[in-house]
Amino acid sequence: MPSVTNGRLIYVAQPSGFQEPGVHTLYVEEQIDLDNVPLHGGVLIKTLVLSSDPYLRVRMRDPSIPSLFPAFHIGLPYVILLDRRTESDDTMEQPGDYVYSYLTFENYSVYPGPEDLQHVLKFIRKLDKHPDLPFSIYVGALGMPGETAYAGWNAYAAEKAKTSKTLFVSSAAGAVGMFLIEYVKCTAPHLKIIACAGYPEKVQMLKEAGVDVAFNYKTEDTAKVLAEHGPIDICWDHVSGPILDAALANMEYFGIIVRVGTSSSYNTAKSSVQNMGLVVDKSLSMFGLIVGFGEVMKKAAETHIEDATKLILAAKIKSRETRYRGLQEAGRALADIHRGLCTGKPVIIVAEE
Amino acid sequence: MPSVTNGRLIYVAQPSGFQEPGVHTLYVEEQIDLDNVPLHGGVLIKTLVLSSDPYLRVRMRDPSIPSLFPAFHIGLPYVILLDRRTESDDTMEQPGDYVYSYLTFENYSVYPGPEDLQHVLKFIRKLDKHPDLPFSIYVGALGMPGETAYAGWNAYAAEKAKTSKTLFVSSAAGAVGMFLIEYVKCTAPHLKIIACAGYPEKVQMLKEAGVDVAFNYKTEDTAKVLAEHGPIDICWDHVSGPILDAALANMEYFGIIVRVGTSSSYNTAKSSVQNMGLVVDKSLSMFGLIVGFGEVMKKAAETHIEDATKLILAAKIKSRETRYRGLQEAGRALADIHRGLCTGKPVIIVAEE
Repeated sequence: MPSVTNGRLIYVAQPSGFQEPGVHTLYVEEQIDLDNVPLHGGVLIKTLVLSSDPYLRVRMRDPSIPSLFPAFHIGLPYVILLDRRTESDDTMEQPGDYVYSYLTFENYSVYPGPEDLQHVLKFIRKLDKHPDLPFSIYVGALGMPGETAYAGWNAYAAEKAKTSKTLFVSSAAGAVGMFLIEYVKCTAPHLKIIACAGYPEKVQMLKEAGVDVAFNYKTEDTAKVLAEHGPIDICWDHVSGPILDAALANMEYFGIIVRVGTSSSYNTAKSSVQNMGLVVDKSLSMFGLIVGFGEVMKKAAETHIEDATKLILAAKIKSRETRYRGLQEAGRALADIHRGLCTGKPVIIVAEE
Repeated sequence: MPSVTNGRLIYVAQPSGFQEPGVHTLYVEEQIDLDNVPLHGGVLIKTLVLSSDPYLRVRMRDPSIPSLFPAFHIGLPYVILLDRRTESDDTMEQPGDYVYSYLTFENYSVYPGPEDLQHVLKFIRKLDKHPDLPFSIYVGALGMPGETAYAGWNAYAAEKAKTSKTLFVSSAAGAVGMFLIEYVKCTAPHLKIIACAGYPEKVQMLKEAGVDVAFNYKTEDTAKVLAEHGPIDICWDHVSGPILDAALANMEYFGIIVRVGTSSSYNTAKSSVQNMGLVVDKSLSMFGLIVGFGEVMKKAAETHIEDATKLILAAKIKSRETRYRGLQEAGRALADIHRGLCTGKPVIIVAEE
């Protein structure tokens, strides 16, 4: 085989606000000779599908700011390797295996050298793809976002849900929120679900998923909606800031707040929370979580693929996608998610098998 | 017996900032004929000891603002009856019994009428006073503050403490904080304790109680001290606002924050919290609690009196008091606690037996 084009998305500048493709990320091409690329005992990975997720914005920061998620480095490919994960399965995959991991935004990635490889392999798991499901679902409902919702709910909220009446999901039309809503409809159907999004077509999608009270937080007053339809027993929050304040003001005593993201501060200045006194006044509990991080979340995730595959095949959990074609579109996929422009999980289809 | 003086503390004006005796509370006297006061089937209670606690400030608010703690009403005696508590023991006490409750700031209180009485009695429990201990300890280490620390720690922190290294206690020199520190020294002596207070004599008191790193948060930078001596596995917070922000910045991953008060907002404008994103980033858990409120706190409190009495008699938990004499001093006791002027639990000795 002669050399082929290897497209890559390079991180070229740190955004101060919203990222722009061509400004903060750049698509470039190199040539790669797949037959003769030196592997030095490592592996060559061909990328089929990549994922755009809100948390990636956290990695486009000043590298001197510490975080669980290592910062990207200017000039290197957009790498989504998590160096704090401590997966224990070091099983070497075989040539031809499908794998799921946090790797680079490239058509072809080479991970050379046994020493480096041991590190990289910590984050690779073999993918047993179901024949009736597309690869892209493995970065959505069967990937990180689905696992976040599934494990987070079962670890922190499922028990409380048994004696609860009302669930509020903020910024609910993302991949995590949609999985959560449909999963809750299956496993805790007695709950009244209140959920918000920022665009009319997303509000419509929430209604179609079975949300009882769906509203647009940009055109309606969140606190007022929650006051009318609450109080809230369980709040599942992706936003923090003013939305969390509105939720806090409308929590029921002994309510719980599961916090999965802080999107209000991803692209703008740090957003403050005013109503934190109510955590004490109402005896609330609050749980921050990150998928795959810590024993509680890992244990709760063990049954995710099996359970969720069944629900997806039964069409009880639906996979809604905004598809981007090729690495040329990857920068836009990464940017759009922060502008609220993706209705459904943004996936980048890099190659067919 | 002829009529005797019945002193009372009346709540006369709603403070916007710090309360002042003579301005917001007023000491007044009436006469009461103890032999002939009409009881209508109710009870006459003679007050021996009253307690000044920080949370009482929350009750001196605009009554239109909802809270677990009912607002005081202008012109009525300073009443510390909690109408959301649901103690189930309705046993009628006998004449001569000692009782512990949330009642009025008066020398003599009459609770007339069977209907009212049933309500009031929910909050009264018979006090089995230990012969070697003073009454005042039953509003401190053996009362509400001690129960807050004991039950809160055992309900939310004791299990986590087993695998933790460092505890931070904010505004630690109050009755809750001092009990907590000495209790932790007994039950989790492996923990390194960092604690702060706002006056040198209180910092000294913390050191004498065995705190490893005691500092004055008014003269030292809390975040800097915590960065040097942390990270923190367990934060026990009475303050919220900037102190909570400093703690959040220095929490260890998977740390827990137990929140027992929000004193930074009791007398001043609502204080915001900036670092709430770190709850997600570090997978933190946060628990707000109120003593006696909810099954978790009630269950954890069941062994408080028995366990704490032993530790007090063994001098492992010490009762430090600032004593005020007579109801004439009650207004000052209520005000001083918010100015940080009480070193040790403020108690108002109203009468000898």
